[in-house]
Amino acid sequence: MDLKLYLHEQCTRIDAALDRFLPKETDLPHSLHKAMRYSIFAGGKRVRPILMLAACQAVGGDSERAVPAACAMEMIHTYSLIHDDLPAMDDDDYRRGNPTNHKVFGEAIAILAGDALLTEAFKLISDPRFTDGCEASGLLAVIHEIATRSGSYGMVGGQVVDMESEGCRDIDLATVQFIHTHKTGALIKASVVAGALIGGAGGQQLAAIIRYGEAAGLAFQIADDILDIEGTTDEIGKDAGSDEARGKATYPAVMGLAAAKEEAQAMMDEALRALEIFTEEADLLREIARYIVKRKN
Amino acid sequence: MDLKLYLHEQCTRIDAALDRFLPKETDLPHSLHKAMRYSIFAGGKRVRPILMLAACQAVGGDSERAVPAACAMEMIHTYSLIHDDLPAMDDDDYRRGNPTNHKVFGEAIAILAGDALLTEAFKLISDPRFTDGCEASGLLAVIHEIATRSGSYGMVGGQVVDMESEGCRDIDLATVQFIHTHKTGALIKASVVAGALIGGAGGQQLAAIIRYGEAAGLAFQIADDILDIEGTTDEIGKDAGSDEARGKATYPAVMGLAAAKEEAQAMMDEALRALEIFTEEADLLREIARYIVKRKN
Repeated sequence: MDLKLYLHEQCTRIDAALDRFLPKETDLPHSLHKAMRYSIFAGGKRVRPILMLAACQAVGGDSERAVPAACAMEMIHTYSLIHDDLPAMDDDDYRRGNPTNHKVFGEAIAILAGDALLTEAFKLISDPRFTDGCEASGLLAVIHEIATRSGSYGMVGGQVVDMESEGCRDIDLATVQFIHTHKTGALIKASVVAGALIGGAGGQQLAAIIRYGEAAGLAFQIADDILDIEGTTDEIGKDAGSDEARGKATYPAVMGLAAAKEEAQAMMDEALRALEIFTEEADLLREIARYIVKRKN
Repeated sequence: MDLKLYLHEQCTRIDAALDRFLPKETDLPHSLHKAMRYSIFAGGKRVRPILMLAACQAVGGDSERAVPAACAMEMIHTYSLIHDDLPAMDDDDYRRGNPTNHKVFGEAIAILAGDALLTEAFKLISDPRFTDGCEASGLLAVIHEIATRSGSYGMVGGQVVDMESEGCRDIDLATVQFIHTHKTGALIKASVVAGALIGGAGGQQLAAIIRYGEAAGLAFQIADDILDIEGTTDEIGKDAGSDEARGKATYPAVMGLAAAKEEAQAMMDEALRALEIFTEEADLLREIARYIVKRKN
């Protein structure tokens, strides 16, 4: 399988669906809808939606049914980036080489565009026009999973601890683990679990997917920490070395670069082991786990 | 019926449920959960939850089943207040006589507490521990209704137009109507519609409740505009006359105080007419509509 080609095709598929689902810029209020679309189409790799579709397929489901929830997940990821970049938070002027939302639309609209994207995600998953072939009880479980992993016990909680740890000396591994499993890991896990639920996973399949999601989520963030050190500014679309400059809690910071690389590899191995109950239907999830660790951006 | 006593009892009921449903302050991250609870318990009148329970009863449903969704609605209302008060938005230091969330916890936590409350709302409605006796398809419809009315085509959209109209001369009635029906009206409407859906409303009942919600929502906001002029700072818990000082788009500003009062009354009459298909089971909704217009805070 040519993974690069596959990822590119899935990216195009998700982008087209996002364009279909998102409010039009011609609808009122124009500024808000423009701001929402600006950040959604600012060059995301669509990792979470692609993972959701792949997990749906891995358990034998029709990935087409997971497209709305996959787009909802990207909206949640995007809202979190818009709010993270705000002056009161990370105060970033650029993201993926483009000016951040508040630099273009102002802080007030950026806050509201984030709020609206988060809301739109739940509106989309529950939209009766797009729920054909999905059980209502399954979709409720998907909403519950995504909301749980995105909220105060998930992504938002991770963001708070990340922020409160910034610049602190002597951050321990447990704290970095908490931040990584919550801030990034939670949405990765929710993506594959939601995909498995929509695909009609049985109990054993779901348990395997959860285990995969946890390991792959952590691998993803450790790889990100490493990229911040080893990648060039051009490759990663933000200032290389910015984590260290900010005193961010990262794996390399607490255990050194070599040990962090070993840990990322170990997490990838764990993700692959979790998939042992599947045959070739989970090959995409396997390839994505490998890609997560070796990617250059 | 003693409405004041009834409202007080329902307020206590909702407060107890909110306390049960909200993350505990002892759970990590403490600062975030503290901030979420601070604004939830900062003296809200619980108008939206009470309307939801009353609408559920009006269509013959068991209001107990609507309690989680009613609390979710209060979380959404509260998140919107936290974000509205931010320096980048209305920049308010006080709300209901208490320091605003960002004055106590800082801007970053205030933004994240708002995000977490919005997310928690959808987590709560879809929580399998609290959905006993509710049809999954009905709850999906509730989530869709609430998300639609809270998002870019509802409350958030209204907030954007309100903000963009601030200080503009020659705001016309259509714009003020757009702001009011979206910024405040949408959540009031969603509250009664969600209550009716949970109560198992038939098509004719639902249509009546929608009509009631639209009229009562507009009446509520016009009454608010009037209170801002006629109430004392002590009564309304914020600076009296602050709308005018800010050049806010209000009914009294575009049509004068007397005409605004007539309009509020006309909307209340319309809300009562909408309920004509019901007998005494809708008396609470009737009383609340009357209260909305004559309240002093």
